[in-house]
Amino acid sequence: MTRKFPDSAYGQLAVVLVSTRNPLNIGAVARAMSNFGFSDLRVVDPYDVAFREARSAVGAGEVLNAAREYKTVAEAVADCSLVVGTTAARNRKLDYTVRTLKEGAGFIRKAIHSGRAAVLFGSEKRGLSNHDLSYCHGLLRIPTGEDHPSMNLGQAVAVCLYELARGAASATEGMVAPDLQATSPLERSQRGFAAIQPAATPGAELDRLASILVEALESAAYPKAASTHDKVVRLVRRLNLSEQDSQLLSGMLRQMIWKMRRK
Amino acid sequence: MTRKFPDSAYGQLAVVLVSTRNPLNIGAVARAMSNFGFSDLRVVDPYDVAFREARSAVGAGEVLNAAREYKTVAEAVADCSLVVGTTAARNRKLDYTVRTLKEGAGFIRKAIHSGRAAVLFGSEKRGLSNHDLSYCHGLLRIPTGEDHPSMNLGQAVAVCLYELARGAASATEGMVAPDLQATSPLERSQRGFAAIQPAATPGAELDRLASILVEALESAAYPKAASTHDKVVRLVRRLNLSEQDSQLLSGMLRQMIWKMRRK
Repeated sequence: MTRKFPDSAYGQLAVVLVSTRNPLNIGAVARAMSNFGFSDLRVVDPYDVAFREARSAVGAGEVLNAAREYKTVAEAVADCSLVVGTTAARNRKLDYTVRTLKEGAGFIRKAIHSGRAAVLFGSEKRGLSNHDLSYCHGLLRIPTGEDHPSMNLGQAVAVCLYELARGAASATEGMVAPDLQATSPLERSQRGFAAIQPAATPGAELDRLASILVEALESAAYPKAASTHDKVVRLVRRLNLSEQDSQLLSGMLRQMIWKMRRK
Repeated sequence: MTRKFPDSAYGQLAVVLVSTRNPLNIGAVARAMSNFGFSDLRVVDPYDVAFREARSAVGAGEVLNAAREYKTVAEAVADCSLVVGTTAARNRKLDYTVRTLKEGAGFIRKAIHSGRAAVLFGSEKRGLSNHDLSYCHGLLRIPTGEDHPSMNLGQAVAVCLYELARGAASATEGMVAPDLQATSPLERSQRGFAAIQPAATPGAELDRLASILVEALESAAYPKAASTHDKVVRLVRRLNLSEQDSQLLSGMLRQMIWKMRRK
């Protein structure tokens, strides 16, 4: 492949594996990343043995050796301004915009030109949990058949990275996909992956805001405040927040918390 | 996937594995075929054990059970009017036209509308031999990087079948992107392609939210709360809020106001 992104853009995409069980799958993912020129592999809460075995496999390669391990999805995507989950389901996650791989790849390509993006893959058995999904701005679906929707993990990653690299090629070759033609910020935000704006807000900032909002709800004795955490994490990601607006809202909420606690 | 080929056309494509060694790879190929709606798997001179193991694996599935075994490539492709080999090499096989996967997929799609076509994949170690290649009309290359060109067999097949199915959609639908097939108006509007605009949240709802936020700020003795009214009105409009989210936020703020005022 003649690399079609600037090298730095390839480095801006993190492939995040959540609770992967099978070391062969981790190895296969690393291999596909090498094939298509990507390098940032992150594993969240892997089965220890699986990760160690994969790493010690003959020819594990650079990608696997450089892979980083995280305890939580939040930590793994803290520096990412766009987080995209993957799913085999057609209609399950009604809270989320589900895009075809082709379309979603367009958003990811744009995002990695101005910041970091993450694509999340769930465990072989259960996919991504609702908690994992709460960190996602949107979902990608590979257009598999209804009878056999669920792909092998290594194959799913390979297909996604192929599409990302493929589209990058056609973008620079003039075969501009419709998704690349969105011009206005309004139009872009209407498409649902709000965080692709150039001034995308880092996940860590959104997490801070979410924590402050949860704290405010707790201070206000909001019903089931503790259990709304995931809901709030999702909510702040649906809002088309710039970093400044996020900080503005945080400041407002802090003031309210101070007031609520002052007796 | 709504099948984009007529069913019969999917059945016209044979995936031919030559001298495959690893039963897991045979299983992975069968799974990818199921995912993308293909069914005709042919194995040439497999390691006996590998093929038997793959077939007896739990969940081997219809594709693997229906797979046919051949002694030679010649027999395996005897009924095919187009035979395409796959290679990771960029320049090695100078006798053959090497096309990118994207381009080659176009030829294959055309061929299977009027006859049978075969795509050949070589063994994990050596790929296709010159003898195998002599049965091919041309070669396909997946655009992998120069440093790590060689893909895992199951992943290579998955990527090829994805491209075939993917292109089939746009081929049969003119230039209509697959994303237009989203079923619900909501989904379509979120995608931004259709003329339908997203159901914008009424200004009155946003104004209600703004008023509640100002009230909360006043209750919290936020500095210059009164003069922030316009700022807040603009803020809530920047947030890309659905009506539900606006109501959710209003409810949260009302609870905080109640708490701040209760003394």
